[in-house]
Amino acid sequence: MTDIFEIPQPDKDLLDKAKQVRSASIQISNTKNQTRIKALNLMADYLKKNSNQILEANREDYLKAEKKGISNALLSRLKLSKEKLNSGIEGVRKVGDLSDPVDQVQIRKELSKGLILERKTVPIGVLGVIFESRPDAVMQISSLAIRSGNGVILKGGSEANFTNIAIVSSLKEGLQKSGLDQNSICLLTSRRDSMAMLNLDKYINLIIPRGSNELVKFIQENTEIPVLGHADGICHLYIDNDVNMEMALSVALDSKIQYPAACNAIETLLIHKDIAQDFLKRAIPLFNSNDVKLVGDKKSVELGVKFEAGYEDWQTEYLDLILSIKIVEDLDEAIAHVQKFSSKHTDAIITENLVNADKFMNEIDSAGVFHNCSTRFADGFRYGFGAEVGISTQTLPPRGPVGLEGLVTYKYFLKGQGNIVDDFSSGKAIYTHKDF
Amino acid sequence: MTDIFEIPQPDKDLLDKAKQVRSASIQISNTKNQTRIKALNLMADYLKKNSNQILEANREDYLKAEKKGISNALLSRLKLSKEKLNSGIEGVRKVGDLSDPVDQVQIRKELSKGLILERKTVPIGVLGVIFESRPDAVMQISSLAIRSGNGVILKGGSEANFTNIAIVSSLKEGLQKSGLDQNSICLLTSRRDSMAMLNLDKYINLIIPRGSNELVKFIQENTEIPVLGHADGICHLYIDNDVNMEMALSVALDSKIQYPAACNAIETLLIHKDIAQDFLKRAIPLFNSNDVKLVGDKKSVELGVKFEAGYEDWQTEYLDLILSIKIVEDLDEAIAHVQKFSSKHTDAIITENLVNADKFMNEIDSAGVFHNCSTRFADGFRYGFGAEVGISTQTLPPRGPVGLEGLVTYKYFLKGQGNIVDDFSSGKAIYTHKDF
Repeated sequence: MTDIFEIPQPDKDLLDKAKQVRSASIQISNTKNQTRIKALNLMADYLKKNSNQILEANREDYLKAEKKGISNALLSRLKLSKEKLNSGIEGVRKVGDLSDPVDQVQIRKELSKGLILERKTVPIGVLGVIFESRPDAVMQISSLAIRSGNGVILKGGSEANFTNIAIVSSLKEGLQKSGLDQNSICLLTSRRDSMAMLNLDKYINLIIPRGSNELVKFIQENTEIPVLGHADGICHLYIDNDVNMEMALSVALDSKIQYPAACNAIETLLIHKDIAQDFLKRAIPLFNSNDVKLVGDKKSVELGVKFEAGYEDWQTEYLDLILSIKIVEDLDEAIAHVQKFSSKHTDAIITENLVNADKFMNEIDSAGVFHNCSTRFADGFRYGFGAEVGISTQTLPPRGPVGLEGLVTYKYFLKGQGNIVDDFSSGKAIYTHKDF
Repeated sequence: MTDIFEIPQPDKDLLDKAKQVRSASIQISNTKNQTRIKALNLMADYLKKNSNQILEANREDYLKAEKKGISNALLSRLKLSKEKLNSGIEGVRKVGDLSDPVDQVQIRKELSKGLILERKTVPIGVLGVIFESRPDAVMQISSLAIRSGNGVILKGGSEANFTNIAIVSSLKEGLQKSGLDQNSICLLTSRRDSMAMLNLDKYINLIIPRGSNELVKFIQENTEIPVLGHADGICHLYIDNDVNMEMALSVALDSKIQYPAACNAIETLLIHKDIAQDFLKRAIPLFNSNDVKLVGDKKSVELGVKFEAGYEDWQTEYLDLILSIKIVEDLDEAIAHVQKFSSKHTDAIITENLVNADKFMNEIDSAGVFHNCSTRFADGFRYGFGAEVGISTQTLPPRGPVGLEGLVTYKYFLKGQGNIVDDFSSGKAIYTHKDF
């Protein structure tokens, strides 16, 4: 994908829009918690009030897409039923219930007499969000952005243009009614603009891509703006030699089939050689009866796995009912395999041996390291964050499932009484560094 | 600079070294606080023991550099006196006294019965540090890396090669004596390797450049590895109309002359028009007597500033005894100027008006926003962090002066008893989301 597109420079129209969002973002970054909650409720009210228009716009998009012959999977993601819309609207209100991520004091201390340092959370500024199809994402992303005091530039899939326009227009009505600048939310509709966004590094502080691995990868490689997200999700489950067999089977099955298209589903199962025969004897029929295609290394094929795996299997995110299986000599080989092939999303071990569990969890450098539970728990809602912005597989924070916390940064506020550094060099003043 | 060099691919030798550091970093990431403190003390002991060799190596570097005719400024940075070495060695021990940044529990909660989530700080992995001249940086950076459980690949200025080799060899002796893998620290000495480092994104998690703006900018533009640092430091001081005149003069002078080559010194002074005449009447002679060259907009030239500023002055980091001056209509114009030209390092306001102070501090999106004190306080030691890795002007954390905290990230640890997600879909299990 990387070589096909050239990233266009933003034209005047896009620059003007970006400047408006930037300016609105400064206003919203200085609003009180209650103002932002009120705005979210009004945004929800206007979505409710304009429900019929939104559903009508969605019908238009749907018919157009159907005529074009897009895939059923895409059509079903595009379709906005009344129930889906209502639950989206409820989602907007719920984001209002989450605790305020802004203006939280992280550090407060006296550096010297009369010189007080505070570090407080502040909004990031302007978010650039690029997503495919799903029109419900517009409501979710916009409400998270407003909740955290950020401006947002949105670009959805063009097949949902009418729906997205109708939704954003309602959101803007709500924003305006609450006294906030409606330019805090901006929708782009052309493909050219969505590419040119990647060059708006003066105006956009963080890009959040929501879509296919190719989309995320392409964006990561083509912008200097920080990107929150993950491309591949190659998760592993290792079955150690000392396990509760029922647990191992149940967790392995859940980690693969509960929702195979999710990034937190496993792609590779590693099995300790001492338990491989017993485990596979029961696991193969279990996976078979759940339509999971198994591909394995030589040893596992000898134990009944039907297809032999090639090297590329260890680096493939199937996102499907396919599972690669490898039999390992010991814990160390399992760790080495994960270190080599993991995309640092989530990797898990099943074992009754706590020393082995600790070793695995400490030596695997992934955002999530799990013991005796399904990798499918790697998710912002399941972690109790209330809302999820995305999952980051970068090493630096924010890492793993990211909630509202990922949409704020911090700033140092230093208040003095005329304090100068020269007084400390000359010995007239001294640092006290007292925490409050 | 960007167009001159091509980034070479790492050769086999460099890849082998990188793999060794990576592997050592996994070992050190799992060491206890006391082990790392012990290692630091042993590193200091061996530096002490080998002091004569280190000073001898430095004399060799110095003579060679002198012959080559390098600048006096560079020579003086290269020179390692016995006192400088001793204070470097003390610095290594002091880093041991800082509180452990690793293994700190940030989140601990029950997701459901028997399913416990913890978020703990962990080392980042492998740091890549590129710095110029100063051999004392090797001791400082290595001790910060080891303290935070990271491996480190160092590349210093080639003019300090003998010194750096002698220092690193002592540090490795200390590491080994403490039982840690000496490969946790690796020194590169060729220019080719230091460039090829930028392509080691599989092995290096964070690049920390310490040197000129050009070096930092070049690195930021030529690697996909996250970079901690800042290129320009264009800091502003705004003198509002309602000020304590003595304070305004004293803070303006300190912010400029206390150490003009520092990134936290101001480059531009903004003055409210109502106070400009009174302020400049006293400020011009004060700056003149301190050899500060003033360049100003038309209005300030009318009030006695000698040289007229061009547009490029507002975007220049002089790093010298030069100060640009602009007279503004009001607070809003001052804020707009800072928003346009600030490099988001540190910007300050002098005012007795608390509403104006708050507005300035909230609307300026810089890592540090100061009120009634010198911009020169923007520094990890002055903030009380004990040690400074660097100052980041990025919007996302770590931001501003970065201490040991910037050398760790976090990881989610989830421990269960066989928990699977399907039980929650089917209603057999429920989320409790209880914080401990």
